[in-house]
Parts: sequence; C-alpha cells; structure tokens
Amino acid sequence: MQSFQEMSREELLQEKQELEAAYQKYAHSGLKLDMSRGKPSVEQLNLSMGMMDVLNSGTDLECEDGTDCRNYGVLDGIHEAKVLLGDMIECHPDNIIIYGNSSLNVMYDAISRSMTHGVMGSTPWCKLDKVKFLCPVPGYDRHFAITEYFGIDMVNVPMLATGPDMDIVEDLVSSDPAVKGIWCVPKYSNPQGITYSAETVRRFARLKPAAEDFRIYWDNAYGVHHLYDLDQDHLVEILAECKRVGNPDLVYKFCSTSKISFPGSGVAAIATSKHNLVDIKKQLQIQTIGHDKVNQLRHVRFFKDIYGMTVHMKKHADILRPKFEMINDTLERELAGRDAGTWIAPKGGYFMAFEAMEGCAKAIVAKAKEAGVTMTPAGAPYPYGKDPKDATIRIAPSYPTLEELETATEIFVICVKLVTIEKLLENS
Amino acid sequence: MQSFQEMSREELLQEKQELEAAYQKYAHSGLKLDMSRGKPSVEQLNLSMGMMDVLNSGTDLECEDGTDCRNYGVLDGIHEAKVLLGDMIECHPDNIIIYGNSSLNVMYDAISRSMTHGVMGSTPWCKLDKVKFLCPVPGYDRHFAITEYFGIDMVNVPMLATGPDMDIVEDLVSSDPAVKGIWCVPKYSNPQGITYSAETVRRFARLKPAAEDFRIYWDNAYGVHHLYDLDQDHLVEILAECKRVGNPDLVYKFCSTSKISFPGSGVAAIATSKHNLVDIKKQLQIQTIGHDKVNQLRHVRFFKDIYGMTVHMKKHADILRPKFEMINDTLERELAGRDAGTWIAPKGGYFMAFEAMEGCAKAIVAKAKEAGVTMTPAGAPYPYGKDPKDATIRIAPSYPTLEELETATEIFVICVKLVTIEKLLENS
Repeated sequence: MQSFQEMSREELLQEKQELEAAYQKYAHSGLKLDMSRGKPSVEQLNLSMGMMDVLNSGTDLECEDGTDCRNYGVLDGIHEAKVLLGDMIECHPDNIIIYGNSSLNVMYDAISRSMTHGVMGSTPWCKLDKVKFLCPVPGYDRHFAITEYFGIDMVNVPMLATGPDMDIVEDLVSSDPAVKGIWCVPKYSNPQGITYSAETVRRFARLKPAAEDFRIYWDNAYGVHHLYDLDQDHLVEILAECKRVGNPDLVYKFCSTSKISFPGSGVAAIATSKHNLVDIKKQLQIQTIGHDKVNQLRHVRFFKDIYGMTVHMKKHADILRPKFEMINDTLERELAGRDAGTWIAPKGGYFMAFEAMEGCAKAIVAKAKEAGVTMTPAGAPYPYGKDPKDATIRIAPSYPTLEELETATEIFVICVKLVTIEKLLENS
Repeated sequence: MQSFQEMSREELLQEKQELEAAYQKYAHSGLKLDMSRGKPSVEQLNLSMGMMDVLNSGTDLECEDGTDCRNYGVLDGIHEAKVLLGDMIECHPDNIIIYGNSSLNVMYDAISRSMTHGVMGSTPWCKLDKVKFLCPVPGYDRHFAITEYFGIDMVNVPMLATGPDMDIVEDLVSSDPAVKGIWCVPKYSNPQGITYSAETVRRFARLKPAAEDFRIYWDNAYGVHHLYDLDQDHLVEILAECKRVGNPDLVYKFCSTSKISFPGSGVAAIATSKHNLVDIKKQLQIQTIGHDKVNQLRHVRFFKDIYGMTVHMKKHADILRPKFEMINDTLERELAGRDAGTWIAPKGGYFMAFEAMEGCAKAIVAKAKEAGVTMTPAGAPYPYGKDPKDATIRIAPSYPTLEELETATEIFVICVKLVTIEKLLENS
C-alpha cells in the first residue's frame, strides 16, 4: 500500500475525510474497551480454578520434609516450591527465595534494602550523592516508578531488536560508579515482546561494573509465557552464564506466578548467587515471620511439576495466541507499507509496542480514548513518563474478548492513520 | 513456704542436694521439650482447617463489590476483609490497609519507609545523625531486631503493672526530637501478659512529641486472644482516643490473624489516621501490585464476621487456658513465698515472663536446656539481647501438649530453685 508520506496533500485530505467518517461511527457509540493493562482475562483465570480444590480440610498441609505449612517456620520458602519455581526459571532450588504475591514487591525490597544497607557490605545508597539506574526504553513503568520513588536518576538506553544497546550499557556500567543497576525484562519484553539475544545476555554476564554494588535487575516475568509450543524464543540463562565467566554475583533474577495462576494470589521469587542470598537473608530474617507457605504448597500440589506448568501454559497460549495474531494481522493489513508506524509480532509475553510516527503517540491514545478505547497512557513506558519522541504506544491484548479486541484494534488503526495524516498535513 | 533468702547455709545445702537428685532424674533422660516460641499447637491449627473448604472450584471468588479476587486490583485490601479486621481491632474499615502474611513485615515496612522517605513529609531518617526508639522492657525481640537492623538507638523503658512507665515516656518523647517511636504490645504484652491501663493509653494519646515524625508503634498482636470469656482485660482503643484529644496521626496500629487462623498463611493489617494512610499509600502503590486477595476472601468466608471470630477464639482459649493455668498453679505451689522470682498470671496472649533473682536468668535457661527443656534465650526480651539484670525468662506455653508442658514446668521450677540457691550460696 502507498505510504502516507508519499501521498499528495489532496490524497491525504481525501483519505482523512474517509477515516473521519469511519471514526465518527465509533466516537459516540458508547463503547468501553480496554487495551491498557496486562491483565489475564476471566477465561484465563478460570484455567487455575482447580487450585482451589487441591487443599481442603481432609488434606495434610505438610511438606515433603515434614514442615507443617500452617505454622511458623521456613523463612525462605518450602523446598518443593523452590524446585517448581527453579524449574520454571532454570535455576537450582538452592539459589531461590520464595516470597508472597507480587514480584514487584521483591524488586522494591531489593532497591529499598540497597538504599538503607547497601549491597553485600557496600555503602548504603542513601548515603551517596547520586545513584543511577539504566533503563532500557521502552520498558515497564512500574520498574521506573520504584527507582523514581527512591530518587534514583534514570538513564535511558535504547532497545534494539536484540535487547538493550549493549555498547551503551557496557560504556556506562564500566565508567560510572554511580550506575548501580539496570532494569531488564529479558524475555518477551514489556512492552515490545523482544527477547534478548544470546550475545546480549553474554555481554551482560561479562560486564565489568565500576561499582561493586552494581546488579542487573533481571525481571523474568514472562519466562514460560510462550504463544507457540515449538516456535519459542530462547533466552540464555543468565545466572549460569555469570557463574561461567566469573561474575556470579552480578544478577538478581525475579519471577512470579502472577500470570500463571492468579495475579491476585500468586507466589513470587528471587534467584541469585549464594553470596547475594546470604546478604538478602540478613534482611529477610528481620523483615518478616515468613511468607504464605500454604499458598506455596497449593501451587505445588496444583501444578505438580514443571511439566504440569508447561501443559497449563499451553492453555493460556491457546487463549492469548488468537488475540496477538489478530492484532498483528490487522496492523499488517492496514498499516504495512504506509510508514505510519512499526511493531514486532512477539512470540510470547503480554504486550506489543506500536512505534508511531514521531510526535503522534499522545494524540493517537487521546483519539482512541474519545472513541471508547483505553490504551496505556503514551509516555508510560519511559522514565518519568516522558517519551522523548512521543512515539511508543503499548498494546495489551489479554483482557478483552477477541471480539472486543477486534473492534478496539479497528478503532486504534483508524486513530493511527488519522493522527499520522493530520501530522503530515500540519507539517506540509 | 520459707523464702530461700531466709534459709541458713545448711538448709540451702540440704535443699540443693534434694534438688540435684530431682534434676538428675531428667538430665539424662533424652527429653526434648520446647517452651521457647509462641507457636500455636497442632490442635489449635486444626481449629482452622475449615478455612481450606470455604473456597473451591465451584465458589465464586468475587467480593461483595464485584471485584474478582483472582485478578489484579484493589491495592489496600478487599472491603469485607477491612470490615472483619476493623471489628477485630475496633477500627473503622476506612482506616485500614490489609497486607499479606506477617504483621512484622508491615512494621518493618513502616520503619524502612521512614528511613528512606520520612513520615508525612519529614526528613528521611537515614539523613539524620541519630534516631532513637523507646523500648518498653521486657518486650518483643523481633521489634528490637528491626530497630537494631536500621541502626536506630534503643532506649529501655521499664514496664510497670500498668504498662510502660509513662513518666519516663512523656519526658523522653517531649524533650528529645531524636526519639521517633516507641514499640508497644499493649494487650497481653509479650512477654509479661500485661495490658496497658486506661490511664496509660490516655497518656499515650496525649503525648506531645518533640519530633513531628514520632509515632507510637502499637502492635496489637493479642487483641482477641483472651483466655476467659468474661474475665478479659480491657484496652482503651488508642486511635479513637488520639482523635478525641486532637492527636489523630500519632499511632500506627498493627495486627494480624497469625494466631487466629494460620501463622503460615494469615492476613496482616495496619490501622491509622487518614493522613498517615495517604502517606503509606504513596509507598504502597510503588511497592507492590497488591497482596493476596484470595486469602483475604478465604478469611472472610471462614469467619464470616466478628462473632464468628469470637466463637473461634474461644476454642483457642479452651486449648490454651489449661496450659497457662497449670504453669501458674505450679509456680504458685512451688515458688510462692520463696523469693526466687515473680510472675503475672495473664488473662490472654501467648506468654508469661518469669522474673528470676537478679543474675540468674541465663543460668536457669542453660540448666533447663541441659535437662532437655528449651526456653527463649535469656536476654531476648531486651534490646541487643542484653537484660541488664539477667532476670527475665520468657515462657511460651502454647506449643507443647499439656502433658509435655507439665514435665517442662516441673524441670523449670527445679532449675529456678537450684540456680537461686547456688547464687545465694555463692554470695553468702
């Protein structure tokens, strides 16, 4: 199809008129569609209802080692939960601490602990003049919210098709001792759905940080969230790679079952080296009596093992795949060759990112909103909510039904075209 | 009975010989009894097994307001859980935030937040040269562990029969702006089982702190943990009292269901003023995606309401009461009038404190240990583990069976007598 950029002013005005007619059809129809949040749909939640049956008053609530999950004890998680989550994120159970619901809380704790107590004996960050974090962009707004809350300076690093631009990462990490961390969603990244290439992971593992207390904050949120059984992205396991190259303490790896079982009642974990674990456990034993062990046991009894989880995740994929494919197909059909934006068709995760023409994202999101389609606010995938190009729009296909999503995507595409044309007319 | 202090050296030697014979009976019998931790017994845990049945795959997991507890959303707890816990701690549901398992974690968060972000806009404590907490002693070791972990200076305040010595509290709080908090277990205190008198609570509510960011850390851990239905201690509700005297923001109130349902899978909460809640929620929205809502719902469906909880707590009392009474009776029978120590018979909670003759606590605990009875380490109820008089021994009657507890108490009494006599002989 013809690129908007190559069209004459008359052609653009003609196209605009047609699009406006199409837009008006929706603008006052009272639609309420939501593509803003990575929430599982009700259909997906129903997949885990069996979890409510595995424990009952006739079940014993004992671990394999005899621990009574109902009582106090076992600060860092029951062993069988460590095995299950270890298999899930390809780590040895001994490298894991299990927490409560929400891996975000585990990440928050990691930063908060570093602020007040430093990292493995380093100066507490609250005693330093300046602390910086690298933020591959676009990225996850809630990561950036944590670092902003603690007054940590955020430095944008562009995402490439292979992950963060490692030339920039290596340069900043090795030269600036104020750089204490980098936020990563290495697999099916939020929002682009990019999986870091093997070379990217290897370069991460080989970083030579200027700061002894630099850590990679590796949020492996979508490690088992594939859309396809065979056509999966592969991520090199970073803890093992770090160990192999003599950098064992470089990474904190985070994960949770939020989008596997229930976001409202899941289990989260951190995986890291023995030295880091010792450091974290010093805090943990002061911080809590212990996280919910019964829910850990419930997850183990429901999934049984990693094979059970794989089978379960295929059911999620069967629900999510048609949604992702429909969006990609629609974008292809309507926008391919028109120079109105780019996107990647991810093979897993929860999001897509639409990269609009510069200066158009806010206007597209606003226009969609007027027609009843809520998108993630433009700018959200950037630190401080500031997208320097005003271009990235996050698309979250999971929550609406396929039918709702079709309508929402149709409206979205109209908005993209309209705003792009308006911008071109304005500049012409 | 005759006081040891009034006995002659010969009488003491004679008594010592008899006690040593009795002690030897146990010393090599391979006994393993544990009076060290406030853990509910298996019998108590079984009381809550019905909680495993209230939710199953046929149950809807929706709140009264339509919230799907399985999904994301509702950061500060589901409304019906706020109502239940509100009734439990005599607060309005709107004054409550519900957390995950472990109220200790909520307290840790409160201190950690104050370190990094201050209190309602005050200077973050990590930027101050000196931060102090008042610690009524004897008290709860895990409170003191939190303040120690954050490098906060701890100042002992003696406990009286009415609660902390308020003359000292008022003086320190009003004169020293470095004093930012006080740890309180106001009802059936850990370890003495003392409930603060109405006058004490009223004086707390009327404090005029030198520091704007001073807060009372009111750990109402045993609010509904009565041993008797009618003969209950009464605690004036401090949030309302603070409001009445124009000091609404003075208190953080903590509670949990740890010793009501399961310590390994409970629900915790903070209750405080609107202003404090706004302050805390600024952190909460950054800190977590949300705590486990399904477990909140499970608690509500199981207890139904505060009456259900009252009925449930009577069953706990039926199990605990004979244990507390047996210990008190044994101590009365064996030690009354002998000047070998003092104690209070509490009307609720989980602990008793035995106040031994000065300089005897460590030796008694060690001697009991040798005979197979584990007590809480002497010193534990004091900041830095240092009991200036080496006198307080915490007794935790809940976990062993009544039969085991009888043996343990018998051994304990022998050890108290032996060590007291040894001390007297030494000093004579």
